[in-house]
Amino acid sequence: MKDKQQKIVVIGGGTGSFVLLSGLKQYPVELTAIVPVTDDGGSTGRLRDEFGFLPVGDMRQCLAALASENGLLRQLLLYRFEKGEGLRGHNLGNLILTALEDLVGSEPEAIEAAAKIFRLKGKVLPISSQLVKLVAEYSTGKKIISEHNIETYKLKENETIRKLYTTPKASINPKAKKAINEADLIILAPGDLYNSIITNLIISGTKKAIIQSKAKIAYIVNLMTLTSQTHNFTAKDHLNEIEKYIGRKVDNILLNNQPIPANIIKAYQKLAEHPVQDDLSQDKRVVRQALLADSDYQKPKSDSLKRSLLRHDPNKLAKTIVNLV
Amino acid sequence: MKDKQQKIVVIGGGTGSFVLLSGLKQYPVELTAIVPVTDDGGSTGRLRDEFGFLPVGDMRQCLAALASENGLLRQLLLYRFEKGEGLRGHNLGNLILTALEDLVGSEPEAIEAAAKIFRLKGKVLPISSQLVKLVAEYSTGKKIISEHNIETYKLKENETIRKLYTTPKASINPKAKKAINEADLIILAPGDLYNSIITNLIISGTKKAIIQSKAKIAYIVNLMTLTSQTHNFTAKDHLNEIEKYIGRKVDNILLNNQPIPANIIKAYQKLAEHPVQDDLSQDKRVVRQALLADSDYQKPKSDSLKRSLLRHDPNKLAKTIVNLV
Repeated sequence: MKDKQQKIVVIGGGTGSFVLLSGLKQYPVELTAIVPVTDDGGSTGRLRDEFGFLPVGDMRQCLAALASENGLLRQLLLYRFEKGEGLRGHNLGNLILTALEDLVGSEPEAIEAAAKIFRLKGKVLPISSQLVKLVAEYSTGKKIISEHNIETYKLKENETIRKLYTTPKASINPKAKKAINEADLIILAPGDLYNSIITNLIISGTKKAIIQSKAKIAYIVNLMTLTSQTHNFTAKDHLNEIEKYIGRKVDNILLNNQPIPANIIKAYQKLAEHPVQDDLSQDKRVVRQALLADSDYQKPKSDSLKRSLLRHDPNKLAKTIVNLV
Repeated sequence: MKDKQQKIVVIGGGTGSFVLLSGLKQYPVELTAIVPVTDDGGSTGRLRDEFGFLPVGDMRQCLAALASENGLLRQLLLYRFEKGEGLRGHNLGNLILTALEDLVGSEPEAIEAAAKIFRLKGKVLPISSQLVKLVAEYSTGKKIISEHNIETYKLKENETIRKLYTTPKASINPKAKKAINEADLIILAPGDLYNSIITNLIISGTKKAIIQSKAKIAYIVNLMTLTSQTHNFTAKDHLNEIEKYIGRKVDNILLNNQPIPANIIKAYQKLAEHPVQDDLSQDKRVVRQALLADSDYQKPKSDSLKRSLLRHDPNKLAKTIVNLV
């Protein structure tokens, strides 16, 4: 790692960014997390509908990852109510961010306030300040509006997402643009390929900012396919989609080479989801490492969204990443 | 004020304790707020019913009063949701405390955790660790169970609360006992005479602890009567009830002597509530001061509970109090 404090921008949302930021914050790097504005499912979706603010779920996960204290404050931000009429399924971090948005009147101020209150080791920026809906057009001609509906759709055999865009069109948050511009490394986090990663890249101005940035670009390939978005996708299929939307070549590709436990493969098989096949053996940009987290994740009962059983390990990911800059 | 840091215990709940603690925390004194465990109305009541934890409303108000930062963190703790199905009327501070209780598994640990997270300038202790219901027996023979029902009842002419107790019986929290025992000054805060103040005093062991403590005792007399509890009560009526339940004489009595604005008197008149009449002219223990807050309080629309329009001023109260120790 270089002497000067390196600027790392993580683009993504949800668990993938959470895991990556949790690892990276332990290193002396300047971190910025860029998150989508298209989330409309679960607790976030309810709050978005009822308050009309930008979606808070991805922000909350990044805030929790960057909170200076790993203990109770982080648990508090991630706490999900299992009881209580109207409360059940709501996430306390989402409620705190919603209250902050209401109190300070604007999104950027709310995030700055949260950063102060939670003593964050980095910045969290929404990719846009506009609240928009995600639209997917499929190879079959089908069209689905709403991130949540895209997430719950099951792709037909050979059906793929041909085009992803937002309605209405939204433009990039100038602060996110600046962070991309000044970055030494931009990481495209693991996570739902379209709903968490590409949903940022399609915001007007993002592609241009990435092309113009002199930052190196790293892409962390997902561990498993997703029936809703990347059914039967290989590592190369993932990479091709990423490069199509960023408009330039990725510099480093991180791939897990640690065997996935049989019981986990079996659990995913029931959902017709499988380990992402590594077909990039000829590609010199690939870094292969053992990247799996030890224990598998238990989804809380009140969580209405599907969440990954299998995760990357924060420390293994971060160690590999900091060796790139 | 003496050289050694004085230990002050504030017994009460709700707005009265909030105002008093907000003022006192600016002085170099060691503060402990003791709060009731009988609150069962509003947001607190809903959470109490649904989670079975100790009521969080009074605790939340004291935490907000003692938060080191007067700004956004305090606003966040006091924030009330005005929208959102199931959220409307809930208080964010209550939700945070409920989540903390659930996360750490016990009340004392939750409060210690909150003190750390919110960097509190003092301690908050529930008078008991038992969740109990308040019972009032009236001079008419009537009996009402539940603090919320007592609060919303309208006393008949000459009807008074003859006896107050909890069901089941509860015993004093050893930490509250210790604080009372070691105090230099115990303040009986302004607030609902039975529902916020005496509800603490009837917890088994409290009266004995107060009698045995060598602390001076100060009582801050309410500004207005309450149709639910102290209809037509004079200052002396208030004092007599307090002394009956603590089992010893109060050392100092604080009485406001600043005229209450006519428009406020008129607003209360509609509720048949009036300024508390000062009939303690012969009593040498009385300290009379201008103690009113400048601006009157606007109740948020989503707040289902009746809250006082008129308040004591935190700074005026605190200044008068610290001159007593």
